[in-house]
Amino acid sequence: MTTYDLPTREFLEVLTSVLGPIEKSTIALHEPNIGPHEHKMVAECLSSGWVSSVGEFITRFENQLSKITGAAHVIAIVNGTSALHLALHSVGIKPGDEVIIPSLSFVATANAVAHCGATPHFADSDPVTLGLDPVALRKHLASATTQQGDDLFNTKTGRRIGAIVPMHTFGHPMQIEELILIANEFGLPIVEDAAESLGSYVGKKHTGTFGVCGILSFNGNKTITTGGGGAILTDDESLATKIRHLATTAKLAHEWEFMHDKTAWNYRMPNLNAALGCAQLDRLDKFLRDKRNLANKYDIALKSSESLEFISEPKGTTSNYWLNTVRLKKPNLQIRNELLTASRAKGYLCRPAWNLLHQLPMYDNSPRAELPVAQMLLSSLINVPSSANLGL
Amino acid sequence: MTTYDLPTREFLEVLTSVLGPIEKSTIALHEPNIGPHEHKMVAECLSSGWVSSVGEFITRFENQLSKITGAAHVIAIVNGTSALHLALHSVGIKPGDEVIIPSLSFVATANAVAHCGATPHFADSDPVTLGLDPVALRKHLASATTQQGDDLFNTKTGRRIGAIVPMHTFGHPMQIEELILIANEFGLPIVEDAAESLGSYVGKKHTGTFGVCGILSFNGNKTITTGGGGAILTDDESLATKIRHLATTAKLAHEWEFMHDKTAWNYRMPNLNAALGCAQLDRLDKFLRDKRNLANKYDIALKSSESLEFISEPKGTTSNYWLNTVRLKKPNLQIRNELLTASRAKGYLCRPAWNLLHQLPMYDNSPRAELPVAQMLLSSLINVPSSANLGL
Repeated sequence: MTTYDLPTREFLEVLTSVLGPIEKSTIALHEPNIGPHEHKMVAECLSSGWVSSVGEFITRFENQLSKITGAAHVIAIVNGTSALHLALHSVGIKPGDEVIIPSLSFVATANAVAHCGATPHFADSDPVTLGLDPVALRKHLASATTQQGDDLFNTKTGRRIGAIVPMHTFGHPMQIEELILIANEFGLPIVEDAAESLGSYVGKKHTGTFGVCGILSFNGNKTITTGGGGAILTDDESLATKIRHLATTAKLAHEWEFMHDKTAWNYRMPNLNAALGCAQLDRLDKFLRDKRNLANKYDIALKSSESLEFISEPKGTTSNYWLNTVRLKKPNLQIRNELLTASRAKGYLCRPAWNLLHQLPMYDNSPRAELPVAQMLLSSLINVPSSANLGL
Repeated sequence: MTTYDLPTREFLEVLTSVLGPIEKSTIALHEPNIGPHEHKMVAECLSSGWVSSVGEFITRFENQLSKITGAAHVIAIVNGTSALHLALHSVGIKPGDEVIIPSLSFVATANAVAHCGATPHFADSDPVTLGLDPVALRKHLASATTQQGDDLFNTKTGRRIGAIVPMHTFGHPMQIEELILIANEFGLPIVEDAAESLGSYVGKKHTGTFGVCGILSFNGNKTITTGGGGAILTDDESLATKIRHLATTAKLAHEWEFMHDKTAWNYRMPNLNAALGCAQLDRLDKFLRDKRNLANKYDIALKSSESLEFISEPKGTTSNYWLNTVRLKKPNLQIRNELLTASRAKGYLCRPAWNLLHQLPMYDNSPRAELPVAQMLLSSLINVPSSANLGL
């Protein structure tokens, strides 16, 4: 039998104690929770015949999200990547610009920037929140940029820096209030990537509502799912009107004419997917309670570990604990991989953090700050099974 | 009471004789047909828990489409616009290129070109097929372009012309075989916009399978619907592999690592939407029969008209008769509008052809051939209610 190092032994013990031993099959990282309520609402949508780009479930889904997040305007979008792309385009990101994003994020954050014809400019993460580090970013911007008129330029590349996209990693809110001060200092708009943080708050304010606009994702692995889907949140009415227009081929209202006034997209969420989303949102509170319960179990089980610790919600915030995260006290990529191999061999489908974006071949020439914390986090973080039903 | 001109009187008579008088409500232009079979398959998908970007219905939907169209490879995509964008990108369309498209098309054809950073270059239509006119295009290319090495350039703009995108208007196949000869002569690949022509054939070969690749759309107004959806068809295995990779964030296969090797998209159709699509495809033959039956009724009713005629499938082709189309024998925009106003006032939700793309503000500086036929068609075409159930 394989004999493992201490961290791996401790990790397997924690998984077994929280999730129970696996008899057969596997425990997924995060699974959709679909029941009779979802069946009922999707069937209602099918019966109505309205399954496509207009329908009452889209409006209902947007209204529900508006109530939950407090955002004055919500636009349901076909997925999170498209939502971020359109949000960036709508706040004025143009080909040739740069956009500040964390290197520790899912590839969609960088791709959405690239879809604008812009270049991601990578910044470092905070070891506690796992999101952009505002202090490090301030230092980087002060040394690497030049203000010219209303615009901020990367001194080295000469390109305009158009926005900052913070991301709330695994559902844990980053220091958005501190980041806003820095964004204001440098005259940059914030577009919040809240793809992972539906149900996460800073104080009593929902993530994704601090920036000029923010986005959510409802992919199958998220806290709630619409199959595929996303949304844009904003309090700015004229921005919301612009986004809604651009998401629907920029068609002008007319009884029959096909008059469009901008190059635009087909980015609206279909009514069928929104129907699933409405049912899921009705059950969001329960999902969040169950997920918090599961997080508590991991937290308690890890308290006695010598080599591992649990990543808790940052002070003053409420996390949705989308993906529960274990940290190696001593970052070590090789040991991290041993934990992954050993746990997956037993059927616990754990995963690491994403490969750092600045190391992917298509972004390895992109501008960046120093990224020591992101590198350290990559060698120390592991996501453990986090579906709501595991917290029952 | 309003007294109408002859064409309007004849038009209203035809609508009443084919569709019956409207007692209350309205008759839509094209509605989804959703029944017990769709309910069953969507419920099956929900019960499986697989509603998102992977699942057996996606595979099944692609296999069904492959059987119907004869395309060796089918990739289900989130919608038709995204399918065309990714198809163009994958055949090598780059920022700064031009792409030949008909001016008489839905705006998505031009938008997909623009999403590549390229510029649409508008060509004229054929009065019989309503699609690109190959003879006129040949003449235009011969006079307006210059060959340099392997590439064709617009002599005036200096930009590379990267592809031709023919579109099968309202489901009627355009002269794709003639176009292929011209495309070959000028060394241009063809990407077929078959968004409207599922179930339409040239001889026995399905539209969308003549070019290097082709795309379909399953929006709510199409012959079959997936809520929102599209697909890319190709016989080229390496192109199919590339497209599949780029549609799924270019993620490399690995047990747990997030390694991506290209800037890419989240463009896959969710399993939930594919489940609806599978059910719809099971009923496609019936839809096509009913639609052809409805087309025959319009054709017969219009035979005795002095001022109007029915647009029939071009010789040697089979049309799906997606949108049945009536033509004013004497093109006249004012009379066309009178027909629209009068019929819609009675509850028949007719519509005109799309505003010509070269006249939309975002494309009015784009390069173009002479476009007399497109202009004439705009003033003479009206689409009439065409849902399959109207042909029962």
